[in-house]
Amino acid sequence: MKIIVDAFGGDNAPLEIIKGCAEAVREYDVDILLTGDEETIRRVAKNHNISLYRMEIVQTNSVITMEDHPGAVLKEKADSSMAEGLRLVSQGKGDAFVSAGNSGALTVGTSMIVRRIKGIKRVAFGAILPTATGNMLLLDSGANAECRADMLHQFAVMGSIYMEKVMGVSTPRIGLANVGEEEHKGSQLYQDTYQLLKADTTLRFVGNVEGRDMPGGVADVIVADGFTGNMILKTYEGVAMYVMKLMKNVFYKNTKNKLAAAVMKKDLGDLKKMMDYNETGGAPIMGALKPVFKAHGSSKANTIKNAIRLTKEYVANNVVEVISKAVPGSRTEQAKAN
Amino acid sequence: MKIIVDAFGGDNAPLEIIKGCAEAVREYDVDILLTGDEETIRRVAKNHNISLYRMEIVQTNSVITMEDHPGAVLKEKADSSMAEGLRLVSQGKGDAFVSAGNSGALTVGTSMIVRRIKGIKRVAFGAILPTATGNMLLLDSGANAECRADMLHQFAVMGSIYMEKVMGVSTPRIGLANVGEEEHKGSQLYQDTYQLLKADTTLRFVGNVEGRDMPGGVADVIVADGFTGNMILKTYEGVAMYVMKLMKNVFYKNTKNKLAAAVMKKDLGDLKKMMDYNETGGAPIMGALKPVFKAHGSSKANTIKNAIRLTKEYVANNVVEVISKAVPGSRTEQAKAN
Repeated sequence: MKIIVDAFGGDNAPLEIIKGCAEAVREYDVDILLTGDEETIRRVAKNHNISLYRMEIVQTNSVITMEDHPGAVLKEKADSSMAEGLRLVSQGKGDAFVSAGNSGALTVGTSMIVRRIKGIKRVAFGAILPTATGNMLLLDSGANAECRADMLHQFAVMGSIYMEKVMGVSTPRIGLANVGEEEHKGSQLYQDTYQLLKADTTLRFVGNVEGRDMPGGVADVIVADGFTGNMILKTYEGVAMYVMKLMKNVFYKNTKNKLAAAVMKKDLGDLKKMMDYNETGGAPIMGALKPVFKAHGSSKANTIKNAIRLTKEYVANNVVEVISKAVPGSRTEQAKAN
Repeated sequence: MKIIVDAFGGDNAPLEIIKGCAEAVREYDVDILLTGDEETIRRVAKNHNISLYRMEIVQTNSVITMEDHPGAVLKEKADSSMAEGLRLVSQGKGDAFVSAGNSGALTVGTSMIVRRIKGIKRVAFGAILPTATGNMLLLDSGANAECRADMLHQFAVMGSIYMEKVMGVSTPRIGLANVGEEEHKGSQLYQDTYQLLKADTTLRFVGNVEGRDMPGGVADVIVADGFTGNMILKTYEGVAMYVMKLMKNVFYKNTKNKLAAAVMKKDLGDLKKMMDYNETGGAPIMGALKPVFKAHGSSKANTIKNAIRLTKEYVANNVVEVISKAVPGSRTEQAKAN
C-alpha cells in the first residue's frame, strides 16, 4: 500500500512529517510518496538522521499556508504540495492522501480535485475524540458551515460505516448533537435531522446527545453541522487541555506537591496520553472518491504516524466503496445511472 | 431588597432551595419571598432546622417539571410556583426572581409574563464560565435555538453591560464564538454578526473566538446563538467534569496514590472549586423588564445562595434600566414612543 503525504502541511513541517512517515514505514509496512521540495526534504532528513527508505518524492514548488484562502489550492497554489497530493491520489498514484495543512483548502481541494462519491452532497471531517468508553467520531467537525438535514443524515451513515469498518465497533451507536434529549429540541435543522435518523432502520440511532454527556461515551458517532461540530471539537480539546494545565500547575506549585505528583507519574502520564488528540491522528475527510486524511495542524511525528495507520485501515477496509453503496441517495443515483 | 425564589424548582427542591435562601438572608441582608406549598416548606424547614427568618411564603398548588413543555407555565401550570413567581416580580412584589426549574418554561414565562425591555428582540441566558483570567459570560447559552444577527448584536450589548455593572470588569472584551479568527469564517449568521459588532464603536469587540481559546480567557463576553451557546456551555462543563473525574480515579487508584493526593488536598480542592459551575450561581435571563435568574437544575444550597448574591448585584446596579437605554433599537423605540 502506498500513502501520499503532504510533506509541507502543518506547523511542524517538514521535519515532523518526514519523521512520522519513517516511523510508519517501519511499523505499518507501507510505502510513502511525499509531495514537496525535494532538496529541503533530503536535507532535513539527512540533518536529523531520518531514513527515507521506501519513500519517493514528487517535487512541488509552493506551500499552502494557514493564511491562504481555501480556493488557492485550485488557482494560485495549484503547484503546491497539497494540490499535487490531491491530484496524485485522484489519479491512483497512491492509495490515500494525508495532509496536516489548511483545512479549508483541503476540503475544497478534496471536493474539486478528488471529487465526491456519487450521491454524496458534502464531504465531512470526522474527528475522533476520546471518551470514557473508547472513542467517538464527531462529524461534520468543520468542513461545512451550513448544512441541510439530508446532509446530516449522510454524515450519520458515513460515520456508522467508519466506526464499524475502521475502528472495529459493531453496530455503532449514532447520536445527534443537540441541546436536549427530547426530539423537538434544537433548531429546525436538528428537528428535521432527528426524524430522518429515526426513520432510517439501517442505523442504530440513540437520539439526541448533549455536550455534557459526550465525554461519558454515550454514542460512537456524533452527528452535527460543521459549525456546531467544530465548536464542540475545539471546546472539547480546549477545556481538556486547560484542566490538565491547571492540574499541572498544582503539581509544580511547590516541592511538597512535586514529590507527591512524582509518585503518580506513570498514571498521570497515561491519563495525559488518553486526553491527547495527537494520539488519534486526525480526521478522515469522508465522502470523497479516494481516502483523504486531515491531520491536526499541530501534528508531531507521532500524530502523522497514527494518521497513516488510520488511513491504511480506511483503505484496507474499502470504506469508500462501502459508503458509495450505503449512503442514502447514492444507491438510487447509481441505479439511475446504470 | 426582596428576592422572590421558586421553592420548588430544580432537582433538589425544596430542601436545598430553602437552605440556600436562609444562607443568603444571613450573608447578604436580603428578604426572601418563597413560592410553593407552604405546608411542605414549613415541614422541611423544621425537619432540617432551617430558620425561615425574613422569609414570606406565597402558596401555589403545582410544580413545573422537566418533562412539562415550556408553554405549560402559561396554561395548565399557571398556578405553579414558577408562574406565580414570575407574576409577583412583574407586579413589583419583589425586586427579582430566581428559579432552578425548567429552562424552557422559565424563558417562555419570562418573555410572556415579565415581558421584554422595549426594543429587545429576544431574552437570552447569560451563563458564567470559569476561565484562566476570571469569568466569561456566554450568551445566549440556551434561550433561542434560532437567532438573527441583530439579536446577537443585542446580546453583545447586554453582555457588556452585565460584565461591567455586575461583575466589575471595566470595558469588557466582547468575542464572537466562531470556527476561526478571520472575519469571513462561519455561517452567514456569524459573518453578518461580525460586521455588526465591528461597526458598533460602543463595544470593545475583540473578534472571533474559537472554542479552544475560551478557557484561556481571551474575552469577557462570548456571543453566540442559543443552540451553539448551549453546545459550548454543556461541552465546557461536561469535559471539565470528566477530566476532573479521571484525575480523581488516578488519586483513588491505590494506597500509594491516595497518600500522594492527600498531600495536595487543599490545592486540588481549590481547583475543583474553581471548575465547579455551582460556584457561579447560574445565568441571568437578560433583556427582561425585571431581573430573572436561572439557577442550575442541579443547584445545591450554595448555588442558590450565589444566585441570590448575583441577583442582588443585578438589582443594585440597575442593569435593566441601563440595558433599556443602551440596546440598539431600544433608544429609538423609546424616542418614538415619547
